[in-house]
Amino acid sequence: MLIVQKFGGTSVGDLDRIQNVANRVAKTKKAGNDVVVVVSAMSGETNKLVSYAEHFSKNPARAEMDMLLSSGERVTASLLAIALSEMGYDAVSMTGRKAGIVTDNIHTKARIEEINPSVMHEAIKEGKIVVVAGFQGVSQDGNVTTLGRGGSDLSAVAIAGALKADLCEIYTDVSGIFTTDPRIEPKAKKLEKISYDEMLELASLGAKVLQNRSVELAKKLNVNLVTRTSFSDEEGTLITKEESIMEKPLVSGIALDKNQARVSLVGVKDRPGIASDIFTKLSSNSVNIDMIIQNVGHDGKANIDFTVPVGDLSDAKGVMDKFVDDAEVDEASYDENICKVSIVGVGMKSHTGVAAKAFSTMAKENININMISTSEIKVSMVIDEKYAELAVRSLHAAYELDK
Amino acid sequence: MLIVQKFGGTSVGDLDRIQNVANRVAKTKKAGNDVVVVVSAMSGETNKLVSYAEHFSKNPARAEMDMLLSSGERVTASLLAIALSEMGYDAVSMTGRKAGIVTDNIHTKARIEEINPSVMHEAIKEGKIVVVAGFQGVSQDGNVTTLGRGGSDLSAVAIAGALKADLCEIYTDVSGIFTTDPRIEPKAKKLEKISYDEMLELASLGAKVLQNRSVELAKKLNVNLVTRTSFSDEEGTLITKEESIMEKPLVSGIALDKNQARVSLVGVKDRPGIASDIFTKLSSNSVNIDMIIQNVGHDGKANIDFTVPVGDLSDAKGVMDKFVDDAEVDEASYDENICKVSIVGVGMKSHTGVAAKAFSTMAKENININMISTSEIKVSMVIDEKYAELAVRSLHAAYELDK
Repeated sequence: MLIVQKFGGTSVGDLDRIQNVANRVAKTKKAGNDVVVVVSAMSGETNKLVSYAEHFSKNPARAEMDMLLSSGERVTASLLAIALSEMGYDAVSMTGRKAGIVTDNIHTKARIEEINPSVMHEAIKEGKIVVVAGFQGVSQDGNVTTLGRGGSDLSAVAIAGALKADLCEIYTDVSGIFTTDPRIEPKAKKLEKISYDEMLELASLGAKVLQNRSVELAKKLNVNLVTRTSFSDEEGTLITKEESIMEKPLVSGIALDKNQARVSLVGVKDRPGIASDIFTKLSSNSVNIDMIIQNVGHDGKANIDFTVPVGDLSDAKGVMDKFVDDAEVDEASYDENICKVSIVGVGMKSHTGVAAKAFSTMAKENININMISTSEIKVSMVIDEKYAELAVRSLHAAYELDK
Repeated sequence: MLIVQKFGGTSVGDLDRIQNVANRVAKTKKAGNDVVVVVSAMSGETNKLVSYAEHFSKNPARAEMDMLLSSGERVTASLLAIALSEMGYDAVSMTGRKAGIVTDNIHTKARIEEINPSVMHEAIKEGKIVVVAGFQGVSQDGNVTTLGRGGSDLSAVAIAGALKADLCEIYTDVSGIFTTDPRIEPKAKKLEKISYDEMLELASLGAKVLQNRSVELAKKLNVNLVTRTSFSDEEGTLITKEESIMEKPLVSGIALDKNQARVSLVGVKDRPGIASDIFTKLSSNSVNIDMIIQNVGHDGKANIDFTVPVGDLSDAKGVMDKFVDDAEVDEASYDENICKVSIVGVGMKSHTGVAAKAFSTMAKENININMISTSEIKVSMVIDEKYAELAVRSLHAAYELDK
């Protein structure tokens, strides 16, 4: 098999951990696999470099930040190659440029445009372990670029896609994807497999193991992604296409997002395009809208409720105050003490009654549901924040996720 | 003027010092000059990275060391460019690759083969301050290389040559080249100008300000080199071609090298090629020979004295013991308590009596001269180490270098 293994900052956080990574890579190689390793900077290094830059400027040039930040991964990559060579393995480190990772020229958040894997291919053919500096690439005009948050995961997935690797293992400090946050429900179980779409829903709902960008790319390139821990030999969770999952569970997981606030608009003026005006204005002020509910009241005026990330609430207030001042909205109120509980599962597509069970579970616990939104594989409910953990545990039990 | 300014590790040792460097560069630019800056890694960084590599391997692959070590200069270069931009100057950092520094592929001690200055030229034409990561280049096959000890000086000199810069300023923690070591003779004076050849003699005699490689390259490329300190506005010392120095001093400086040991061979067998055998054998054992004296004794057997660096003495002993065992040499003795005092000056070429004054000065102080060697611009004497400082001060006074 050809396996791409990606190790994040904490996995290469010090020299002993880099040695552990070398041992793990060596074991994979020794088992007869070809291995390409993608590494992040040692944890803390990137933050240190960012703080150096901020010492000089609040708004440093992005191309200079890329020059600066791309150095961290080079260090880890060369150290790992040195460690592997010392263990008797033929290993070679490569920068993003050398590995053929070509990006656009949007510095600090570049997008991978193409990967020219010939140099990697050749090294693999020669039996070498290839160690690639993650998070970085090179623009068409020859400048080093970085891929933004989660960039090393993206590097790994893109490389796995370009090399048609059998597996792309993402090593982090958590051992996989769980049916829910084990800190809330200790009975949470690690999932063996999950589909790309479920993972995307869970990630956007706050599961921090993988970023959506990486999962989306894995889906697009059809890369079998495994998320597992570098601190033990525990098996991780395979993220793959739905068709590869034989037994599809009704519900795969329960997600909780406490980072939400509700905006309630009462008496929205009855004129064409008012809702569009409101949401366009919010969007142009960089307020992210999640769930929206609209009711028409008796007097022809509508009530609109929507949720925003807590961090966007003050911006949202600024926008809404203007609408109230202009008498387009009678009243705007805000509630930070809410949360969003979501049930995710591809099984919902073909089974009825999943949502109904969620509502009845809430009712049984006397938890009032403020807002509901559903997609093909997800049911989300906005509830009072104080019931967050109770709701998660009740739903976890109701769908028998602990079994 | 187009000025290349190179700042070493201590000059960019922390963020405040990098800001100081930015201020100095800005001042040069503001005075109407074009500026290309070459920077080293922050002091301590390279040693830290080397220690990381040594944690994994006593003999890490040289290409990996280059990948590893070249990251330090990138950090400094981007930070300096950020600092300059913040001050309102248009600045751009460049790796060795971007700056067009092409080397051979001898990793960790690559030689610069050519510089393609077009990217730097274009940036300069646009009014930009160019900040180049020193110490590094790229091999013809596209791998990053480093230039070895003193590599950033070499980068600066080579860039100054390629750009036909008017001046190449090397900033260090000492303020220039002195008539002798001021710690030995407080009356030592800083030289305003010195020729390449004198500087080469002084450098090989232990003056640590500049390495011979850089001075040789400056001489070859006809680069006007200035060595000065980044910690004050003091003028430095200009190192230039002899013809540019109008008033040639008889003697420019007195150098002291305590790092020498003497090997004395008594009764060297009288056969053709014996001396050649001895020195070939020493050379193949990596023993560096400096001065050599040979006398023929009464019995036809020769006596040979030579000096070696103290660090090479035990290797030299090993070689000589073999010759004694083989009865090719009657006796070998060793003396570490010697030193070499040298008088350097281009004026010697056209003046007689310079060496004679040195000998009479030693005689006046009752210092016995063990060995003498002379070149066109240098007189070196080996004396008892205990007279080292006395000899330096006496010669400094005799040639009126304090005037």
